[in-house]
Amino acid sequence: MNGAQSLIQTLVDGGVEVCFTNPGTSEMHFVAALDTVPGMRAVLGLFEGVCTGAADGYARMAGKPAVTLLHLGPGLGNGLANLHNARRAHSPVVNIVGEHATYHIQHDAPLTSDIQAIAGAVSGWVHTCRDADSVAADAAAALAAALQPPGQVATLILPADCAWSPVGRATPPPPVPRPAPRPVDPATVDQVARILRSGQRTALLLTGPAVTDPGLELAARIGQATGARVIGNRANARLQRGAGRPVLPRLPYPPPQARAMLADLQHLILVGAQPPVAFFAYPDQPSLLAPPECTLHTLATLEEDILAALDALAEAVAAPAYTGPRYPAERPPLPTGELTLEKVWRSVAALMPEEAIVSDESITSGRNAEAWTLGAPPHDWLSVMGGAIGQGLPVATGAAVACPDRRVLAMEADGSAMYTLQALWTQAREGLDVVTVLFNNGAYAILQGELRRVGAEAGGPKAGALLDLTAPAIDWVALARGMGVPASRPTSAEEFNRVLSAALAEPGPHLIEVQVKGPGSGSG
Amino acid sequence: MNGAQSLIQTLVDGGVEVCFTNPGTSEMHFVAALDTVPGMRAVLGLFEGVCTGAADGYARMAGKPAVTLLHLGPGLGNGLANLHNARRAHSPVVNIVGEHATYHIQHDAPLTSDIQAIAGAVSGWVHTCRDADSVAADAAAALAAALQPPGQVATLILPADCAWSPVGRATPPPPVPRPAPRPVDPATVDQVARILRSGQRTALLLTGPAVTDPGLELAARIGQATGARVIGNRANARLQRGAGRPVLPRLPYPPPQARAMLADLQHLILVGAQPPVAFFAYPDQPSLLAPPECTLHTLATLEEDILAALDALAEAVAAPAYTGPRYPAERPPLPTGELTLEKVWRSVAALMPEEAIVSDESITSGRNAEAWTLGAPPHDWLSVMGGAIGQGLPVATGAAVACPDRRVLAMEADGSAMYTLQALWTQAREGLDVVTVLFNNGAYAILQGELRRVGAEAGGPKAGALLDLTAPAIDWVALARGMGVPASRPTSAEEFNRVLSAALAEPGPHLIEVQVKGPGSGSG
Repeated sequence: MNGAQSLIQTLVDGGVEVCFTNPGTSEMHFVAALDTVPGMRAVLGLFEGVCTGAADGYARMAGKPAVTLLHLGPGLGNGLANLHNARRAHSPVVNIVGEHATYHIQHDAPLTSDIQAIAGAVSGWVHTCRDADSVAADAAAALAAALQPPGQVATLILPADCAWSPVGRATPPPPVPRPAPRPVDPATVDQVARILRSGQRTALLLTGPAVTDPGLELAARIGQATGARVIGNRANARLQRGAGRPVLPRLPYPPPQARAMLADLQHLILVGAQPPVAFFAYPDQPSLLAPPECTLHTLATLEEDILAALDALAEAVAAPAYTGPRYPAERPPLPTGELTLEKVWRSVAALMPEEAIVSDESITSGRNAEAWTLGAPPHDWLSVMGGAIGQGLPVATGAAVACPDRRVLAMEADGSAMYTLQALWTQAREGLDVVTVLFNNGAYAILQGELRRVGAEAGGPKAGALLDLTAPAIDWVALARGMGVPASRPTSAEEFNRVLSAALAEPGPHLIEVQVKGPGSGSG
Repeated sequence: MNGAQSLIQTLVDGGVEVCFTNPGTSEMHFVAALDTVPGMRAVLGLFEGVCTGAADGYARMAGKPAVTLLHLGPGLGNGLANLHNARRAHSPVVNIVGEHATYHIQHDAPLTSDIQAIAGAVSGWVHTCRDADSVAADAAAALAAALQPPGQVATLILPADCAWSPVGRATPPPPVPRPAPRPVDPATVDQVARILRSGQRTALLLTGPAVTDPGLELAARIGQATGARVIGNRANARLQRGAGRPVLPRLPYPPPQARAMLADLQHLILVGAQPPVAFFAYPDQPSLLAPPECTLHTLATLEEDILAALDALAEAVAAPAYTGPRYPAERPPLPTGELTLEKVWRSVAALMPEEAIVSDESITSGRNAEAWTLGAPPHDWLSVMGGAIGQGLPVATGAAVACPDRRVLAMEADGSAMYTLQALWTQAREGLDVVTVLFNNGAYAILQGELRRVGAEAGGPKAGALLDLTAPAIDWVALARGMGVPASRPTSAEEFNRVLSAALAEPGPHLIEVQVKGPGSGSG
């Protein structure tokens, strides 16, 4: 057994089943070992951002890590933006980054770079293997680090000679510890309960496990029993919504609207959430979204046992069963006539299968998605967590690998899709059941709004041109077909309904391009 | 005037004419300032690796920096692989990386990351602006750093409030120093001259300015006068070759062949080159390519005045004019019949315009390009310097921006092209005269060889599948057309000649897909 084999064996023993990879020469022994150590599925991406985004999507849905296998510093660099998103999603991910043989690094060959420095910017744990004998223990440590609640990115750098050298000591790989989330101090629960009973204007702000089934129900009960409002973060790693679940208003993206939503609060109880902050700073606008007179309290962080804390809190305020508003179970009628943004979303709500997974990177085209998808059946909603666009297609890819029995819908903006369009090829290769709805507005429409919002003197021809994607127009049907994904461009609501129905009924990926027209209807 | 305007003014005053950008919200004031400060052309890339690779290609041909404008840590991350290549090419590049407003960073908004750490891995100079008043001086310092011989990547991190705040002191931006390369110690030249006159087996290994016109001629004279062999590095930032220039054998990529080329040497004189080292380590093979008994000497590093050193050396050995072999001036005949790799290259040599620029990322499909392009007119040859594939199309893009009067040929492998295919859109948008010859062998063919070379137990179905790009096959004609680039897929040599002639005669970009068949004829 060599180091690469002991690495894969340790990962498989630790429950890892999938490797998303774009390998190079320094990873060839890992690649070869995939055939000699059973149990690891290898999924090829033609760009590393596809691999790291897929690992994020996989982790969110599988609740456990996939590994990525990346080629030295530049390969890691190509995966960095989606690792940033994974870090913000607290997705457990184990990166295996190949490195030159230990004795080769001193010679500064062309691909040599400071991998530790690059990895450190997105990883909670970074380590470089020293020899083949230590690879198994290193792999177990990497996996344990990734699983540390609430989950993080762990990067193990694997010099080529550590992969190819034989393992001397045949000790079994150490077991991977799976630490539980920390319990919340009962005193904290009591204090939050006192605030909730005070009659002052209070809201709970939820994310993490709090926006999945048991958490949503508990928070809704607490809100109902105490009069507190219950609000969700705008972006969540995995939000459960749809028919029958408690309605959850979410913080809007534009800071003025977000501030308005929180304006009258005296207390904001953070349940997995950080103090709400504007995505960007703007001249003469505050960074923090809650008013200065609002006191922030933390019920539980993501490192803590959020569901147990909510359960204790519900008990402390003697909350009965929830009887308030829930998402309707009746699907909307199929839209007809001219195809508009609203009709696309209503058609999706009308046709989405039960337990679909929505990877949402629709940006401006999705601003009203909450209202326009009422009536959709129960589904999971995955958002961009780190603000680095180009994750929607990769996350959809990974979610489909994690959940082969569920349908994935990638609701995707043209500008965002362009960063990692290579994901379509992986979807075709693996026959993944992903339907991409591509909102093509020919613009970085979100930036058209942001240019105004930052107060910049907008409207000049150069600035305008930099936010325009119509010269030349991008033909997404051609791009999808070029990567082996069937694609179409419906022009009426009826045609969209028909194409979406067919795509959802057939196995494998499809792309549906929607031409979005008019100001304010754009996607980012 | 605000910070962004003073930044652009300083860069324009320092000679910068082009900004390759993929901006976001934090860069909106820079974008707006492009319309109020004249003199900066803005070129949009839909992925940051396009921007950074284009800046590299621009710098190699223009001999001065372009700037990139990137969106926080993730935008820089997306550009990292081609910045790694630019670093290895010693291309002067100034990155402007947007950052949250100084007072916003503490709130850890979703896009917050350690930009300095990411930048440090690829930059020789990194600085974060403190306030609007210091932006002009910071920009001048960044530009001076980029121009420090032999050129390097300089990264200036620009918090949004430093861009949008008014500049208080209306001092003119400081002048940008342009340091000259260091002179070489005459004693070094004398010592090398003594070795060359010793009669021992000696070679000169050239790169940098030594492989451009005056350097090639000087080195050829020295070799002729002393019996020393003259060898070029395999990869060079800018190699001048073609009709009438001295023939320059180059170090092969496979280490056994490279070692064989150097096997009998007693002395190796480095002229801009580093001690030659294998690209990767392989089990039981040495890292260094020169034999242990060969002594290495440095005539001049890239930081030093290589041309002056060669001139002094030619004088020291009393080298007369060069009368040895030169690349032939007679173009090869147009090939006919079945289209093969060799015929593609011979057609390129037959049809390439004078002073064409070749961006070579053909990998395995280009292994014999040296022999197959004999008869080509004078041209420049740009190689991947850092080994991070995905630079060929971006470098071609930047070279075309730098040299609008010259034709650019991107000789490109399918696997490599896929990382940064978005460059095609920028070529279409800017109407750049780039003809891409896309070698589609449906494989990471170089890795098929590397899997054998590292000694890995190859041949397993999983390993084989990870190097195969045929399921599904990628339709490059569809991908190019999807981004607005006319494309074709000729199937005979005659058709290739016709298509290439037409593409070279028409303005704007074209892509010609060549289906490469058979083992050993692959591209990486």
